Amino acid sequence: METRTLRCILTGLGNIGRSFLAMLPARAAYLRERYGLALRFVAVADSSGCIACEQGLDPIAIVACKRDKRGVVELAGGDIRITEMTAAAQRLPADLLLEATPTDIRAGQPGLDLIRAALQRGVHVVMASKGALVVAFDELARMSDWSGDRRAPRLRFSGAVAGALPSVNIGWRDLAGGEIRSIEAVLNGTTQVMLTLMSEGKDYAAALAEAQRIGIAEPDPTLDVEGWDAANKLLILSNAVLRQPTRLSDIAVEGITRVTPDDIQRARRNGGNLILLAKAERGADGRYDLSVRPTSVPADHPLARLGMQEAGIVYQSDIFGRTTAFSLEDGPTGTAAAMLRDILSIAPEIAA
Amino acid sequence: METRTLRCILTGLGNIGRSFLAMLPARAAYLRERYGLALRFVAVADSSGCIACEQGLDPIAIVACKRDKRGVVELAGGDIRITEMTAAAQRLPADLLLEATPTDIRAGQPGLDLIRAALQRGVHVVMASKGALVVAFDELARMSDWSGDRRAPRLRFSGAVAGALPSVNIGWRDLAGGEIRSIEAVLNGTTQVMLTLMSEGKDYAAALAEAQRIGIAEPDPTLDVEGWDAANKLLILSNAVLRQPTRLSDIAVEGITRVTPDDIQRARRNGGNLILLAKAERGADGRYDLSVRPTSVPADHPLARLGMQEAGIVYQSDIFGRTTAFSLEDGPTGTAAAMLRDILSIAPEIAA
Repeated sequence: METRTLRCILTGLGNIGRSFLAMLPARAAYLRERYGLALRFVAVADSSGCIACEQGLDPIAIVACKRDKRGVVELAGGDIRITEMTAAAQRLPADLLLEATPTDIRAGQPGLDLIRAALQRGVHVVMASKGALVVAFDELARMSDWSGDRRAPRLRFSGAVAGALPSVNIGWRDLAGGEIRSIEAVLNGTTQVMLTLMSEGKDYAAALAEAQRIGIAEPDPTLDVEGWDAANKLLILSNAVLRQPTRLSDIAVEGITRVTPDDIQRARRNGGNLILLAKAERGADGRYDLSVRPTSVPADHPLARLGMQEAGIVYQSDIFGRTTAFSLEDGPTGTAAAMLRDILSIAPEIAA
Repeated sequence: METRTLRCILTGLGNIGRSFLAMLPARAAYLRERYGLALRFVAVADSSGCIACEQGLDPIAIVACKRDKRGVVELAGGDIRITEMTAAAQRLPADLLLEATPTDIRAGQPGLDLIRAALQRGVHVVMASKGALVVAFDELARMSDWSGDRRAPRLRFSGAVAGALPSVNIGWRDLAGGEIRSIEAVLNGTTQVMLTLMSEGKDYAAALAEAQRIGIAEPDPTLDVEGWDAANKLLILSNAVLRQPTRLSDIAVEGITRVTPDDIQRARRNGGNLILLAKAERGADGRYDLSVRPTSVPADHPLARLGMQEAGIVYQSDIFGRTTAFSLEDGPTGTAAAMLRDILSIAPEIAA
């Protein structure tokens, strides 16, 4: 098989960007043999700035640099020059933008401007972050192949809705042609862990402290515990899979902050469970009612079987029946792996 | 969106072929609006023979004809002429062969010759039956896009491995780029139902009789209860997803005929379960060890949570972690729906 090289710009070198780069060297030969694909990083950016090199930057050197807590600009010199990441997205010869900057839910930046710049000039985009999709799904869909225009640049984001869980892919591809009647999902890891800890008797504060101690919950857990992270993911599913134009204000959101161990004990009787359920349900008028709220599910509900560190989704379709998927993954690795699958899914169509 | 029309030859009008045709009229407008696609049936075949019509046959008339237990040749007359299905696959102007003849595991016929004829002249193929894949996966892969040649005709068969369950699709697409360490799956409906009935105290003979009474088990249940149906599906996963050339003789197969209610009671203690497990496990040499056998799985195994009428699959990957999928579906409808998703997945690439 001939090898096609994709020239990539990678923005964001947090846990996900680093995991992504770190998994490449060991599988470069495999990607070449099985998929006929090589990735060349013509620019990478972190909070220190952006470096570029036409001949390609070395993933190993970048990972080592980040492991030493240094900014990538320190790698500049020789063929490697310092540039600016927006300028790279706008002008650098490239095939693909890999967007992994931190998620900013309010403005979607800096991802949104980077993605706009790339799509505008026909550069394909794979995203790991949610922000730009939450803020501007419609606009980005219109600029990309989601518009239905096969010649438009590709936009993929399978890792933005619960990492390795094929939540978006099952919906838009495996259930294509059917009418989706409902989606029920557990899409937020922090709250699933906390509710499981609370089922063992801990109260809310103790469960939060424990989740923070093991590195699952953020120092400021607001977005997770108040349900906004799950709502953001449901918003993406609603826009992308259900094709219902959706804003955050269309979703009824209630977090887990008022849940007590007693609530969970009650739900667990007879094999049920209390979960933070993200739900879309088709009404008689064909519109989906969207909500995120703590919900008691019975023993025979697939999400009652979900493990402490699992994410899960259940689709009901008129012709496909009930399709359930769970994912148990190492957070950043799973999301980085989702970026790789997105690249491989579009590579046959886009590689020169 | 402009509408592209795919000219289809449908061979086989058993439960699956009929379900497929029956689901189309009500969703024709939806397929046109959302996917820009229309299907025109230029030929259909059943055991009575094959009819053809350039302007397109009417799915409703065909379904009605079959419901009345008549052969499709009785629809001939006017624009509709009688032909021969191999001749249709060889020569009739068409874009797509939809192959749904009964599965014949030994020779793979008549599907195999039909698929060969179609692929040979560049007609794309979507299969619902397993036979041809079991007998000649390698040959069909070489003739189609599975060879890595993007210009070769497409060959899709997502419904051949447990119907609506996205078993093949998750493996080759959602886990692309990773190394699959193992596959564990429950792929045969009859045995899953029988083992569940036996867990309620029935012995093997009573469970079989009950499964036959409710229409789950065939009058001759040999292929199911002796594990061959599950082995056939594992063979397809091994060839298509693991890319390990595999024949049936490479799989260690043991059915459920010697399982006793006691075995199941023992397995069910502490929340585990006894299932007919199809398994592929990667060895130190990189080759997968393949087996189908009754297996006791512990409570924390995802397949211990499987419902009586569910199929399920668990992938372990180095970078994607553990990915589980279940499907609860109405048999023929789920497999027919899988044909539709396969058509929609290739339509953007193949429609003129």
